[in-house]
Amino acid sequence: MEERKTTLNELDMPVVEEKSLPEAEHLVKLIDEKKYSEFVRLLSDIPVADIAEIFEEIEGKYRTVFFRLLPKEIASEVFVEMDSEYQEDIIASFTDTELSSMLEELYLDDTVDIIEEMPAIVVKRIIKASTHENRAIINQLLRYPKDSAGTIMTTEYVRFRGSMTVREALDHIRKVAIDKETIYTCYVTDAYRRLVGIVTAKDLLISSLDTELSEIMEDSVVFVNTVDDREQVARKFEKYGFLALPVVDAEHRLVGIVTVDDAIDVIKEETEEDFAKMAAITPTETPYLKTTAFGIFKSRIPWLLLLMISATFSSTILNRFEATLAAVFVLFVPMLMDTGGNSGSQSSVTLIRGLSLGEVEFSDIFRVLWKEIRVGLFCGVALGAVAFGKVLLVDGLIMNNPTVTVEVALIVAVTLALTILIAKIIGSMLPMVAAKIGFDPAVMASPFITTIVDALSLVVYFFIASSFTSP
Amino acid sequence: MEERKTTLNELDMPVVEEKSLPEAEHLVKLIDEKKYSEFVRLLSDIPVADIAEIFEEIEGKYRTVFFRLLPKEIASEVFVEMDSEYQEDIIASFTDTELSSMLEELYLDDTVDIIEEMPAIVVKRIIKASTHENRAIINQLLRYPKDSAGTIMTTEYVRFRGSMTVREALDHIRKVAIDKETIYTCYVTDAYRRLVGIVTAKDLLISSLDTELSEIMEDSVVFVNTVDDREQVARKFEKYGFLALPVVDAEHRLVGIVTVDDAIDVIKEETEEDFAKMAAITPTETPYLKTTAFGIFKSRIPWLLLLMISATFSSTILNRFEATLAAVFVLFVPMLMDTGGNSGSQSSVTLIRGLSLGEVEFSDIFRVLWKEIRVGLFCGVALGAVAFGKVLLVDGLIMNNPTVTVEVALIVAVTLALTILIAKIIGSMLPMVAAKIGFDPAVMASPFITTIVDALSLVVYFFIASSFTSP
Repeated sequence: MEERKTTLNELDMPVVEEKSLPEAEHLVKLIDEKKYSEFVRLLSDIPVADIAEIFEEIEGKYRTVFFRLLPKEIASEVFVEMDSEYQEDIIASFTDTELSSMLEELYLDDTVDIIEEMPAIVVKRIIKASTHENRAIINQLLRYPKDSAGTIMTTEYVRFRGSMTVREALDHIRKVAIDKETIYTCYVTDAYRRLVGIVTAKDLLISSLDTELSEIMEDSVVFVNTVDDREQVARKFEKYGFLALPVVDAEHRLVGIVTVDDAIDVIKEETEEDFAKMAAITPTETPYLKTTAFGIFKSRIPWLLLLMISATFSSTILNRFEATLAAVFVLFVPMLMDTGGNSGSQSSVTLIRGLSLGEVEFSDIFRVLWKEIRVGLFCGVALGAVAFGKVLLVDGLIMNNPTVTVEVALIVAVTLALTILIAKIIGSMLPMVAAKIGFDPAVMASPFITTIVDALSLVVYFFIASSFTSP
Repeated sequence: MEERKTTLNELDMPVVEEKSLPEAEHLVKLIDEKKYSEFVRLLSDIPVADIAEIFEEIEGKYRTVFFRLLPKEIASEVFVEMDSEYQEDIIASFTDTELSSMLEELYLDDTVDIIEEMPAIVVKRIIKASTHENRAIINQLLRYPKDSAGTIMTTEYVRFRGSMTVREALDHIRKVAIDKETIYTCYVTDAYRRLVGIVTAKDLLISSLDTELSEIMEDSVVFVNTVDDREQVARKFEKYGFLALPVVDAEHRLVGIVTVDDAIDVIKEETEEDFAKMAAITPTETPYLKTTAFGIFKSRIPWLLLLMISATFSSTILNRFEATLAAVFVLFVPMLMDTGGNSGSQSSVTLIRGLSLGEVEFSDIFRVLWKEIRVGLFCGVALGAVAFGKVLLVDGLIMNNPTVTVEVALIVAVTLALTILIAKIIGSMLPMVAAKIGFDPAVMASPFITTIVDALSLVVYFFIASSFTSP
């Protein structure tokens, strides 16, 4: 193996190596020393996403020079990749002519993404610097509802008439390819711009040149509506494995396409939003290390506060029952609360994901309830039995606490089983009900479920304990 | 608006409509009545992912007939889409010849995916039924480490020599396109099959026919290694927006490609795995509604048990301190535990995601620690202040409990602030340390963090309470 490797390398043929990224410090030095051609050479052939990363790493005062040294067509792509705070700085450093010239290089869906992150004053400049034609499209794109297919689609796609031949189609592609986001899926429309079929570049390449597109086009097309939620759009990509999806308006006219790379961005953003909500954090798009401590504080404190206040129920219940019961019962409050919380969050996370992936719908509510009741009973009985033994053995014998009697162990075990059952039911039902009434189910995750289950488990505990122990 | 719609529809042109899916019951009726051509007509032009869904819905005894009625090329695609339990049934109903003929239709990466889910006896049949050439490739693919790029790549890609002209390349594509998973990104290799560049179908379409590929190919290529983790591969798709990525072996020879649809599947699977682990559930790939109650029980019980046993620490601590302290302090145990748990899980989920997305690395540990300490102080002071007021007002005045004094409120507030600080530190550090020592950070989420923080917050609480109140 080792020998063979040597032989191959000795041939000294031009083999692709992963180009090592230039160091930010080295690039800054080149700028300082005005070695601009060396700078440009080092950055040539580096993927734009990597250039954007290096750009964000270097010291602020070098950024304008760095950006202006990039070749024009690369500069605009790097611009799209960087965080909005840097975009704002760059735009501020531009003259109106420079801004216009960069906007010409951008795809319109990227322009719209950028606009959505900018303050009003910058938005005005961008719209003013756009061409008359683009301005109309941008305004249209900005009017689609938040998180809809209309906001992530691009209007730069290839459109054919069914009467064209493959030869004509290929000629057309040659002419327009450079300005289109994809040429691999092309769309056939009628005189009213209504979508009638799709033709892939593969179809075009393997068909004879005189064939009419209407003969080779696929006329059963999966499409989405401008107002469809972007998450639904992303799920269609997951399900069907397409490279692009057409977007139509209420009159079935083709108004744009969503490409797979944008779908991946949506999947990523929606996933991170769900993770944040499930941990009771207000979602942000800024990476962790770039967010200030105060920024993180702001995204976390409202939920902590709300949940802390809600936990008041539990103290109220404890307050009410404490006086009437033996002190020994307090020992098992943490175990009951933790296990209840964990049981509930297992169910809630399972259902939140099921709903989000479209595997579960509100109409399944009784199937879900029945399933969770059985799971709750299995888990409750199993853990109750273990807890019974554990309480007697560890808390009674090993810890040598004479107040831990068989009766106490039994009360703890029964309460635990009931708590688990209740936790499973609440944990599964709340996300379903939330989805039904238009709330985001992701909010019904561990923190909320735990708070509710805590209070309920205490009620159950004291109810059982007092009925067992009262004369 | 309404008027216009009517006008367009009255033109009665062939407009694409989302084809409504046939009902499973209706299809079963057609099979019963032997109306096979009607059956085939109804399923024509339906996306295979939808056919697979209908297939899984119908009654078991109809499935073999259903599958055999599908046209051959569609049948194999539907087969790939269905759950492995159904695949196993279908294979069992096949003769060896039928199996061979279906395997011919499959892409090799799909065959390998299927093999990985089958019991040994079925695997043997599949390998035996494959052609001699494919058998060697399948065996090679099966040898790559679990979850590596090698296991998700396909070996069916288009490969050129740099000396070929665009015309030759297009002719070659025309011949082989039907068997290749993508023709939109093609690969240029040298005499030793080492990757030297990529050419896109777009490049081919817009270049003149006599150009040599070496002139138009991109020779700086992002690639992955066969042994790279599949999650890293998926992150590269997210970052760069590619349609396919080449996979090379240790000697830089091109051995396969990963296509974007497979990358999306990986993103989906890895995300769901993380969600499951963070809710203390053993990840499974079966959708919720298809899993039996006992199956769900099995994926949830080990973690519940482990966490319940760990909660013993908390009772031990309560046991130790309870006798020495005033009963009033017990009232605030749930609020302290819940708020501590929530604070900790906010930090842990943030860091788990940051690590998973590659935004945070182990070397950032001190920056993270310093950030979390500040966030913890902000949150601790804010919530401590609110808690102080709330304890005095709600638990003291409104609940009319004379044992809730200013001193008690102060002790609760200080404990709460410290608990939050500790929770933030533990919640952020455990995932980082886990990643460093090769554990999956996702396991260090709410349930574990809560259990640890619970015990620590009790220690802090009783320590502070006893030092304040002892003479």
